Amino acid sequence: MSYPQTTFHHTTFTPHSFLSRLRHTLPTTLRTQLSLLHHTGRYDAFRLQPHPSYADPPTHWPVPNHLFWDSDVAKWIEGACYLLSECPEEAGELKDIDEAVKELVDMIRGAQQDDGYLNIHFTVVDKGGRFTNLRDLHELYNAGHLIEAALIHHHHYKNTLLLEPILKYVDLLYNTFGPGPSQLHGYPGHPEIELALLRLYALTGDQRHHDLARYFITERGRNGGQFYTEEAARRGDRENEVPRYYPEKKSYWYQQAHKPILEQQTIKGHAVRAMYLLTAVADLVRQDGSGSEEYLVAVKRLWADMVGKKMYETGGIGAVRQWEGFGDAYFLPQATDEGGCYAETCASIGIMMLAERLLKVDLNAEYADTMELAFYNTVLTSMSVDGKSFTYLNQLASSPQDLSKREEWFECACCPPNIARTLGMMGGYIWSWEETSSGVDLVVHLYTAATLTMKMSTGAVVTVQMTTDWPWDGKVSFAVTKTSLELTLNMKLRIPKWAEDKWTVSSGGSSSIPEAVNGYISIPEPYSSSGITLDVPMIPRVIRAHPFTNRETACIARGPIVYCVEDVDNSWVTDHFKTTHIDLEAPFQEELVTDPKTNETYVQISMPSGGQVYDIEKYPSYYTSYVARDLVFTPFYFRANRGGKGHMRVGLKVPPYPTGRISA
Amino acid sequence: MSYPQTTFHHTTFTPHSFLSRLRHTLPTTLRTQLSLLHHTGRYDAFRLQPHPSYADPPTHWPVPNHLFWDSDVAKWIEGACYLLSECPEEAGELKDIDEAVKELVDMIRGAQQDDGYLNIHFTVVDKGGRFTNLRDLHELYNAGHLIEAALIHHHHYKNTLLLEPILKYVDLLYNTFGPGPSQLHGYPGHPEIELALLRLYALTGDQRHHDLARYFITERGRNGGQFYTEEAARRGDRENEVPRYYPEKKSYWYQQAHKPILEQQTIKGHAVRAMYLLTAVADLVRQDGSGSEEYLVAVKRLWADMVGKKMYETGGIGAVRQWEGFGDAYFLPQATDEGGCYAETCASIGIMMLAERLLKVDLNAEYADTMELAFYNTVLTSMSVDGKSFTYLNQLASSPQDLSKREEWFECACCPPNIARTLGMMGGYIWSWEETSSGVDLVVHLYTAATLTMKMSTGAVVTVQMTTDWPWDGKVSFAVTKTSLELTLNMKLRIPKWAEDKWTVSSGGSSSIPEAVNGYISIPEPYSSSGITLDVPMIPRVIRAHPFTNRETACIARGPIVYCVEDVDNSWVTDHFKTTHIDLEAPFQEELVTDPKTNETYVQISMPSGGQVYDIEKYPSYYTSYVARDLVFTPFYFRANRGGKGHMRVGLKVPPYPTGRISA
Repeated sequence: MSYPQTTFHHTTFTPHSFLSRLRHTLPTTLRTQLSLLHHTGRYDAFRLQPHPSYADPPTHWPVPNHLFWDSDVAKWIEGACYLLSECPEEAGELKDIDEAVKELVDMIRGAQQDDGYLNIHFTVVDKGGRFTNLRDLHELYNAGHLIEAALIHHHHYKNTLLLEPILKYVDLLYNTFGPGPSQLHGYPGHPEIELALLRLYALTGDQRHHDLARYFITERGRNGGQFYTEEAARRGDRENEVPRYYPEKKSYWYQQAHKPILEQQTIKGHAVRAMYLLTAVADLVRQDGSGSEEYLVAVKRLWADMVGKKMYETGGIGAVRQWEGFGDAYFLPQATDEGGCYAETCASIGIMMLAERLLKVDLNAEYADTMELAFYNTVLTSMSVDGKSFTYLNQLASSPQDLSKREEWFECACCPPNIARTLGMMGGYIWSWEETSSGVDLVVHLYTAATLTMKMSTGAVVTVQMTTDWPWDGKVSFAVTKTSLELTLNMKLRIPKWAEDKWTVSSGGSSSIPEAVNGYISIPEPYSSSGITLDVPMIPRVIRAHPFTNRETACIARGPIVYCVEDVDNSWVTDHFKTTHIDLEAPFQEELVTDPKTNETYVQISMPSGGQVYDIEKYPSYYTSYVARDLVFTPFYFRANRGGKGHMRVGLKVPPYPTGRISA
Repeated sequence: MSYPQTTFHHTTFTPHSFLSRLRHTLPTTLRTQLSLLHHTGRYDAFRLQPHPSYADPPTHWPVPNHLFWDSDVAKWIEGACYLLSECPEEAGELKDIDEAVKELVDMIRGAQQDDGYLNIHFTVVDKGGRFTNLRDLHELYNAGHLIEAALIHHHHYKNTLLLEPILKYVDLLYNTFGPGPSQLHGYPGHPEIELALLRLYALTGDQRHHDLARYFITERGRNGGQFYTEEAARRGDRENEVPRYYPEKKSYWYQQAHKPILEQQTIKGHAVRAMYLLTAVADLVRQDGSGSEEYLVAVKRLWADMVGKKMYETGGIGAVRQWEGFGDAYFLPQATDEGGCYAETCASIGIMMLAERLLKVDLNAEYADTMELAFYNTVLTSMSVDGKSFTYLNQLASSPQDLSKREEWFECACCPPNIARTLGMMGGYIWSWEETSSGVDLVVHLYTAATLTMKMSTGAVVTVQMTTDWPWDGKVSFAVTKTSLELTLNMKLRIPKWAEDKWTVSSGGSSSIPEAVNGYISIPEPYSSSGITLDVPMIPRVIRAHPFTNRETACIARGPIVYCVEDVDNSWVTDHFKTTHIDLEAPFQEELVTDPKTNETYVQISMPSGGQVYDIEKYPSYYTSYVARDLVFTPFYFRANRGGKGHMRVGLKVPPYPTGRISA
């Protein structure tokens, strides 16, 4: 049973390509983060010594600020292991990273308690608090990330130095949680361990690992989340002593525990929690097979609600800051001063995870389209192109309250290491394949310059080299090498929905237009092996916000890339582009440019005189008073890399209807 | 020193006119509410017997649901007294209301404690809790409404049966609160007593009444509201035991206590609290005169912020449900499913109160324009035309979550009696005057069919009869009667801003266009006494939402009346008019109609083929697929009086820019 985390190393990214360039910052990113782990106290936290910051009052009561440290370390280890296992020839160069992983693993081993328990906060600070606040305290979330770290550590180092203590910890969890009379009938406030346990089961085959994940998923939301209410009463919490991220008492929809997952009709609450939970549910469907259709129905229902009504043009999710999550259907303001916009990095990483699992049980290009959208826009924008600074929120427009910028680190540092590990395993997202009796079935979800090496159980090898300048150019060619001509390679290629009917495919000198089934075209032998060229023209297009979003805006996209305007290119802006309208009749100009400061190469789009900029000082006669401006659009992922005042916007207003009848 | 509550009885409304018809429902309204006072237990609550509902868990902890009962009773007494004192000839017919007032006053007198204390909850339920939670528990708010009830009771009954115990209670409050070492340095969580004490001072001349109001106003917000923090600590509240209406711990901007009023730059928090507080501050400025300019600067700054950036087209305020108050600047969604809209009835009543006080210290038509807007739209829409059902919220559009409708009563019943007392004192809002050495200066703020009788200290009388069909027709004529020809009547008439330059005025057969100063034209003798006709054409106009509101909508208005569309007139609607755009080039048709069910007469506006209704099923090709519909507009105040499905909207989208370039 494959995962991006288990297949990534079969992919080699072609040097100097778009993704290869991005991923070349990984050593820098990991070293930047390692230095911050040291600096903040996280690095040494598994030594179980008190750190001065442990006494800080929590920013978000009752969550101690250091509660996530276990997961920060685990995610860094994970990102490091992807890099190390992919670049053995560079191991010497990465010696510092390798040694840090080893030291951290030593410390984690040393931090394990006799009964298997493994958590910094509940060993050093709150010794009696173990498993008394599943609702808020991320204990099982941390455990999940430790499991994920152990899996990749085992993959890379071929030893069990980390896996062994983690398995012992999982044994303790298995005995602690479950339906038995002496067990806790609880489930994590922040899902993560469920998807980790299912991946662990795929390695170990230990049924207990699958069963514990299944228990957490199916127990979740029983009696409206009553476990959390009882747990709070056992702690002696007063009825109105409730974290501020809950809009009401007992609003357990915050963590998707207000009702069983099968009964949830709309996607609600904290966006990262929702994505991590549904990723596990989709994987449970895959592992359980035909007995679990009802769970697939539930996941698809929630996915459709999210993509259709609660996702931004950039693949961001979560409009509401209070609970870092979903608002009502179509409530998708672009900025803080318009009512909100969260679009957390980790939530869009969660979309990728969920889409990947869904593709495995229900091959449909809509999942891959959304995965690509989230990746190229919200996920990639969360890191500077030098790999050294990051975002947590990815709002579609800046405001006086929230400028467009990045930070070195966050108190709750979930996002920076998450992007590192996502880039680390990126090869596993590009394509998926299965060995068949006669060869291999390969499905290509994302396009990039890379080579996939598929080794069969027979020892035969099929290599597919994909050549393209994606996302700037839509021409993609595939060259196949097989150790035996008899091997049958059946390929499926995704046709992005935005390509409409403008794409073409040719193979062996002849062109054809096969019908796409669920968004994928099938290329069987002999065409697959004779070299394929897919051409998906990249043409700038206008994406208009849904009429129900309460904003009449349009943004520019080209292929998978969504664009924004920034003041660094449009220096006349003083109002975060609030009064800039796009003249939709103005022509687009496209140019491949290289930014001299960062050396980033990308297609810039401009619309000469395409901006109608209204003079807000003249409101209400505003609508008859404007100047035309040249507009320059920059890929959203590249925003805030070149200085400027931090004014940025994705969706610009479209011109108002001309009329002389309007008054104040 | 005059107030609407002290001058209202000088105005007689002309029978069968618009306001007269509305005010004729007052006996029905007061009887409906009296029956509900009985039914819910409020009527007998001052008997100080426990009521079963006292044990109910609070809907909004820590506020007991019955905490407002004192003020509900007080406001009903107040409304009743306006009616009784205005209609002595009807006293026989209103005997039940008169007797209820007397019985309630008896009960209130009996409920007073030996030391003067007077409050239901803290006498019957929580005997030890007196003055321990000013932040949340409305104790001083209730006291304020009791003072206001006592003032009008004294005015009407010419006795001190209610005023006497209230003065005793105020003595207790004066001794309890203040800067002294043994006094509480606190101030009310919900302002109201401040404006009531200043009115009390205007009657009694007792400096202590002025000083206590001034203390509450100037102490408010000291050290960031530290009093509330200390008070919570004294109660033993835990740090995170915080009411859900506070978005964060200690967010005392909820009740405008985050900093001293002089330092507040923008209007924030609970809208009713803000209006009641600023009303008191404006009156303090009037009472204190030239020593208090800095307070006038502060109030004007907050007023400008509100009217310019945080007020709906209907004169509603408050976009955010959680704290029933202001959002960020220009955050003005129309409906729950667009991100919010509260526009509470009492908040717009507060706008009228504040505008009235500001007109007294800074005569400027912008206050009266806003007062008129709030009154004719948000305040009037809050009561059905039969006077029997009410609203709390006055959203600009319905949604599946919140249909356009009214209710008989509310658990927190602030709004229904508030509209009754506002209509009761309405005569005091229309105009204001001051005796001069030679006669009288009269300022007309609002237009309606009514007669004002001004008695001079000399015994002379000036009577001004205003004749108009306002708000349906903009012609207003004035006829003056004087007991002596030597009396000089100087009149000022407000020119509404929406009249632009289309108004005319004529007097004594000659027409002239005097210059309006701060929105008022001056008409001296002999023109004033020779009969004036002001003509302000009522022409339908389009009000477009401010560009920063994040919605491209326009609504229709005519004179002071803002219109909406309702499904009862536009029966094809199934989506709360979300997909209905206005064709701004379509002609308006106006017709004076009488609704057969309610007998309400009003100007209906229609736009034949003026609606472009888009087929949302065809999204994203939505924009090229529409049908034209006839649109019928109804005054917003009249919505939800004729049945229907409850679909309604004020601001409709304007057509999108035509283009072939838009894609999904």
